[in-house]
Amino acid sequence: MNTPILSTIQSPEDVKRLSREQLEPLCEELRQTIVETVAANGGHLASNLGVVELTVALHRVFSCPQDQIVWDVGHQCYTHKLLTGRRDRFETLRKTGGVSGFPKPGESDCDAFVVGHSSTAVSAANGIAKAKALTGDEGYTIAVVGDGAMTGGLAYEGLCNGGRSHDRLIVILNDNQMSISRNVGFMARHLSELRASVQYVQTKKGFGNVISAIPLIGKPLYRGMVKIKSALKDTLYKSSEMFEEMGYYYLGPVDGHNLRDLTRALETAKHINRPVLLHVATVKGQGYSYALENPDTYHGISRFDVASGQAEKGAPGFSQAAGKCLCTLAEQDPRLCVITAAMMSGTGLTEFASRYPKRCFDVGIAEEHAVTFSSGLAVGGALPVFAVYSTFLQRAYDQLLNDTAIMNNHIVLAIDRAGIVPDDGETHQGIFDVPFLTTVPNTTIYSPSNFAELEINLKQALYDTEGIAAVRYPKGAEAAGLSTYEPDYQPYTMYRDPMASTLVITYGRLFGNVLQAAKRLRSKHPVSVLKLTKIWPIPEDVFKLAGLYSRVIFFEESSYNGSISQQFGAALLQRKYGGTYEPYAIHSFIPTCSVADGLRATGLDAEGMVRRILGEANGRAE
Amino acid sequence: MNTPILSTIQSPEDVKRLSREQLEPLCEELRQTIVETVAANGGHLASNLGVVELTVALHRVFSCPQDQIVWDVGHQCYTHKLLTGRRDRFETLRKTGGVSGFPKPGESDCDAFVVGHSSTAVSAANGIAKAKALTGDEGYTIAVVGDGAMTGGLAYEGLCNGGRSHDRLIVILNDNQMSISRNVGFMARHLSELRASVQYVQTKKGFGNVISAIPLIGKPLYRGMVKIKSALKDTLYKSSEMFEEMGYYYLGPVDGHNLRDLTRALETAKHINRPVLLHVATVKGQGYSYALENPDTYHGISRFDVASGQAEKGAPGFSQAAGKCLCTLAEQDPRLCVITAAMMSGTGLTEFASRYPKRCFDVGIAEEHAVTFSSGLAVGGALPVFAVYSTFLQRAYDQLLNDTAIMNNHIVLAIDRAGIVPDDGETHQGIFDVPFLTTVPNTTIYSPSNFAELEINLKQALYDTEGIAAVRYPKGAEAAGLSTYEPDYQPYTMYRDPMASTLVITYGRLFGNVLQAAKRLRSKHPVSVLKLTKIWPIPEDVFKLAGLYSRVIFFEESSYNGSISQQFGAALLQRKYGGTYEPYAIHSFIPTCSVADGLRATGLDAEGMVRRILGEANGRAE
Repeated sequence: MNTPILSTIQSPEDVKRLSREQLEPLCEELRQTIVETVAANGGHLASNLGVVELTVALHRVFSCPQDQIVWDVGHQCYTHKLLTGRRDRFETLRKTGGVSGFPKPGESDCDAFVVGHSSTAVSAANGIAKAKALTGDEGYTIAVVGDGAMTGGLAYEGLCNGGRSHDRLIVILNDNQMSISRNVGFMARHLSELRASVQYVQTKKGFGNVISAIPLIGKPLYRGMVKIKSALKDTLYKSSEMFEEMGYYYLGPVDGHNLRDLTRALETAKHINRPVLLHVATVKGQGYSYALENPDTYHGISRFDVASGQAEKGAPGFSQAAGKCLCTLAEQDPRLCVITAAMMSGTGLTEFASRYPKRCFDVGIAEEHAVTFSSGLAVGGALPVFAVYSTFLQRAYDQLLNDTAIMNNHIVLAIDRAGIVPDDGETHQGIFDVPFLTTVPNTTIYSPSNFAELEINLKQALYDTEGIAAVRYPKGAEAAGLSTYEPDYQPYTMYRDPMASTLVITYGRLFGNVLQAAKRLRSKHPVSVLKLTKIWPIPEDVFKLAGLYSRVIFFEESSYNGSISQQFGAALLQRKYGGTYEPYAIHSFIPTCSVADGLRATGLDAEGMVRRILGEANGRAE
Repeated sequence: MNTPILSTIQSPEDVKRLSREQLEPLCEELRQTIVETVAANGGHLASNLGVVELTVALHRVFSCPQDQIVWDVGHQCYTHKLLTGRRDRFETLRKTGGVSGFPKPGESDCDAFVVGHSSTAVSAANGIAKAKALTGDEGYTIAVVGDGAMTGGLAYEGLCNGGRSHDRLIVILNDNQMSISRNVGFMARHLSELRASVQYVQTKKGFGNVISAIPLIGKPLYRGMVKIKSALKDTLYKSSEMFEEMGYYYLGPVDGHNLRDLTRALETAKHINRPVLLHVATVKGQGYSYALENPDTYHGISRFDVASGQAEKGAPGFSQAAGKCLCTLAEQDPRLCVITAAMMSGTGLTEFASRYPKRCFDVGIAEEHAVTFSSGLAVGGALPVFAVYSTFLQRAYDQLLNDTAIMNNHIVLAIDRAGIVPDDGETHQGIFDVPFLTTVPNTTIYSPSNFAELEINLKQALYDTEGIAAVRYPKGAEAAGLSTYEPDYQPYTMYRDPMASTLVITYGRLFGNVLQAAKRLRSKHPVSVLKLTKIWPIPEDVFKLAGLYSRVIFFEESSYNGSISQQFGAALLQRKYGGTYEPYAIHSFIPTCSVADGLRATGLDAEGMVRRILGEANGRAE
C-alpha cells in the first residue's frame, strides 16, 4: 500500500505535527489501509470507516495516554490503532498472535479499557475520569459510544451517573443511525429529532481559537467566557433538554466527516470543564461504496474482494441451521417466538424475521431485557427462544436466575458462538456459558455435534424439557467428519472398544477431534468414547459406565471452573470412583486466534488429545 | 384488629362489590393491618403505605388474574396480598412457611411474577402482554414501578421495548420521589419537572363514566372517542415528550391518594389500547406519622412499637463492622473509594458517606454500572470497594468477567448478606455468589467468621490481592461463640484432634456450628476442623491435610453447583484422594425463613452436622 503520510505516524504526537492540508490525504490512506486489511483478514468494516475523521480529530485535540479514550464495543478502533503505534503490525489484524480487533490495554497504553461487549464505555470512562479527579490528574476521559449501544441499559446507567459528576468526561455520541442491525429504541428517535430540522452546525471562524486561548486568561475571565460560550452555543448548536437534564453540556450535531468542525467542537468540549455530550453524525461505511450501501452486511465481514465487494462465502453454519429449524417449528406451533438482542443476522434469524415478523423480537443490545421479557412470554403461555451469543448471555445471569429459574419458567436459549470463537479474542470467547448456567437451578443444557442433532436438541429443549433449556453450538460449520454422523435422540451415546480400559468423554464439536484421536490410537491405545448430548444435568448412567474403566478422560471446550468435566469429577468422587480421572478444559482467557489455533493451544485438537491419552503431554489435567 | 370491611374481602371480586363510601374506611383498615403486622414481624412499611389507594383502585378497575399486575421489586405488594386471598394468613408475613414479603406466583394466581430484584417489571409485563396479544387473551398487563427502580438499566430497556409494542400494557410510575435511599438520576429530575408547575390533575366529573361506557358503543364511534380523549388529555393531563417518544400515551400526574382520580385515570388507561404510562404521585409512609417523617428508616424495618415508632435494635452486624473498618482505612489511604447501588445504609456506609462524601458513590440501583465504574476507577489508580448484597451482585456478572477480570483490574467486593438471608425469601438469599465468582478468572474470595477477621480480610483484599478480591459476610451479628474467636492472618486454620480420623472443613458463619458439633462429638466421634478464611482459590496445603484423613466432610452455606465444596471434591479426585468425601451444601432455592430455620432445613445447624458426622442423617451428601 502507498501510504506516505500514514507511514510517518509512529505515535499520536506525529498526528499533531501534520499540517491541516495533510489531514484529508491521511484519512484517505487510513481508509485504504482499513479496507485492504479487512478485505484480507475479515473484520469490522463499516463502523471503522465511519470514524476515521473523528479519530484523527481526537488525536489532534487530545493527547493519549494522558487523555484516555474508551471506545464502546470497540467496533471502531482501527484508525485509533493505526495512529497509536500499531501500524506496522496492522496486517496481523485478528490473526493468532496479531493485533486484536478490539481495544486492548496490553497492546498499547493508548487503549484505556478492554471492550468487546456493548454499552460499557460511559461507565468505564466515568470511573477513569473520577479517579483522575481524585488523584489530581488533569487528563481528559473520552467515551465514544454508538447510537446502537444506547439501547443497552448499562449505557443509560453510565450516562445518568456520568452526568452527575463534575469531571473531565466527554461522551461522544457517534450517531450513525444504526446499531449492528437496524436501530431500535427511543434514544434513536431522540437523536433523529436533534438531527432533523437543520443542517449540521458550522463552527464560526475563529470560535475555536478563542476558546482554546482560554487557559491563558485566568479563572474569572474564563467564567465569563463560559457564559459567552453558552450564548454562542445557543446560536451554533442545538439543545437537547434530555441530555441537559442528565447533566451534560450538549454540543451538536456536528458533521462527523468534517475535520474542521470536529476539531473545533472537541476544542470547545475540552474547555467546558464539566461533562459534555458531543453529538457527532457519521455515516457508516463512509468512503467505500459497497459498505456505504450495505452497512449492515459490511458491519462485520469475512474476507472479501475490494474491487467487487464480494465476500467469501463460508459453508452454512450452526446459526443458519438453527434459524431454519426454528422456522419449521414455528410453522407448526403458533406459540413459538424468537428473541434476539440486535443479532438477527448473526444468529441466523433473518428468514424467521421475514416469515414471522409478529413472533420475532429484536430488543436492541439488551440481553437482560431479552431474558426477562422471554420469561414474561412464558408466563403468558408463549414458547420463547432467545437466540444469543454465549459471551453476551453473560449479561443476563441474574435474569436467568431470579426472573426465570425461581419460577421454573420455560424458556429456550439458543446459544450461538459457544466454545472458542475465531478472530475476536478474549471478549468474545464462548467459554463461560456452561460454568454459569450450571449454577442456575432448573437448567438443562444440550450440546449438539452436528446440524441434525441441533434440530433434535431444539425440539427436546422446546417440548421435552422444563425450566431453562439451553442448546449450545459453535460458530461455523459442522466439524470435519461429523456431518454424516448419525444423531441420537438419547442423552448420550457410547462407542465401545472391547479392548479399552480408558474411557474418553466429550461433547459438542470436540467429538470430532476425539473420534480422530481414537482412530489414530486404535491399535496402540484403544479407547472407548462416550459422547454427551444432554450435558447437564449429567445423565446418571454415565457415572456407572465410567466406573467400568480404570481411567477416564474428559475433553471439554469450556472454562474449567464450573465446567461439566469438573462437576463430573466431583460426582465421581462421591460415587467412590477408584480409577484415574483426567479432565482437560480451558484454564485462562483466550486471545485472538482461529478455532484451530485455539484448540491446539489448549490441547483440545486431535493431536493434543492423542498426546494426553498417551500421557505424553505437558499440559495439566485440571 | 377491628377490620369489618377488610374481613369481608376474600378475593378481588369482593373489592368491586364495595360501595364507594366503603373504600376510604377499607384503606384505613388496610393501613392499620399493615402497620401492626410489620410492627410485629418487621418488613417493608413506608413503600407499602404509599400504594394502598393505588392498589384498591387497581382491583376496582382490573380483574386479577385475567389482568395481571407485576409489582416491581415487590416492596409494595402487601395491600395486594391482603385483597387477593391472603388476609387470613397475613400475620405469618415473612415468617418461616408464612406469607412471603414479595410477590410469589406459588401463593396466588394473582401474583404474576416472582420479584425481589429491582427494575424487572416492565420487561416482564412486556412479555406477558405480548403473549396475551399472541394468544388472543384480552387481559391487561400492568407494571407498577417506583421512580427509584428507574435508575436501573433494565427498567430503561424494558420501557424502551414496551413502548414499541401495541399491546395492552400499562406502566404505572409510582413516583414517591425517592428510591430506597435518596433518589438519584435524571428520570427523577424529569418526573419532578412534570410534577412541578401545577397541582395534580382532577378528572372532570363524568369523564370516567363516559370512558367506561365506550366498549358498548362500537368501534367507529370508539375511534372518535379516542380523539376526544386526546383532546381531553391535553386539558386534563400534562404531557411528557420523553415518554411519548418512548411510545407511551402519558397520563399524569395523578394524586396517588385520591381514589376517585386514580380510578378514573385507570379507566382511561384501560381504553387507550396501546401502551400507557400513568404517572402517579404517592407519598411514602402515608398514614403513619413516623414512616411519613422518616420514609428511609421505615422503608424496610425490623419489629417496632406502633405507638412510639421505636424499632428493635439488633446487635451491630457485619455491615456496620465493614463500614467502620472502611472508614479507618480511608483515613490512611486517599485512594480508597466506596461504591453502593442504592444500599448506603444497608451496607453500613452511612458514616463513610458523611466523612468522605467525595469518595463515596451511590450510583442508584445500577449494579452493572457500579462494577464497570469501579473497574474504571481502578484503571485510573483508585482503590474501589463496591459494597453490595450477594444477591444483587448477580446482576453484574458480565461486568466482573468482561470489564474487570480480563484486564485483571483490582477491585474489592464487600459482599454483604452472603449465605442465608432472613425473612426475604428466594430472591434475597446470598447463596450464588461463590458459585458464580469462582467461574470468573483472577478472583480471590475471603470469608471471615467474625468482625476481627472481616477487618483483616478487607485489608488483605485491598493490599495483598490482585484482580477481583471479594470479602463475603452474612447479615447480622457474629455467630454465637465466634465473637471471642482469635482471628488468623492465614488462609486457613487447622484445629487438630489427635484422635480424629475425620476432618471437617468449613468457612464463614458455619464455623461456629462446626465448633459446637465438634464439641458435642468430642468423646463419641472426635473430628479435626479446618476453617478456611481465604476460600478461593483453595489453598493447596488443604488438599495435603485432607489426604491425612480417611473421611473428609465439607459444610458450606452456598448453593452446591459451583461451590467450594464441589470444586474441592473435583480437586481431591485429581489428587487421587482415596477416602470418603462428603460435601454438604444447599441444593435448592430457599423460601422465606429465619437464618436458624434455613440452616436447620438444609442440615447446616449444629444438630444437623452432628447427625451427618455420625452418619445418621437422611440428607444427601452432594
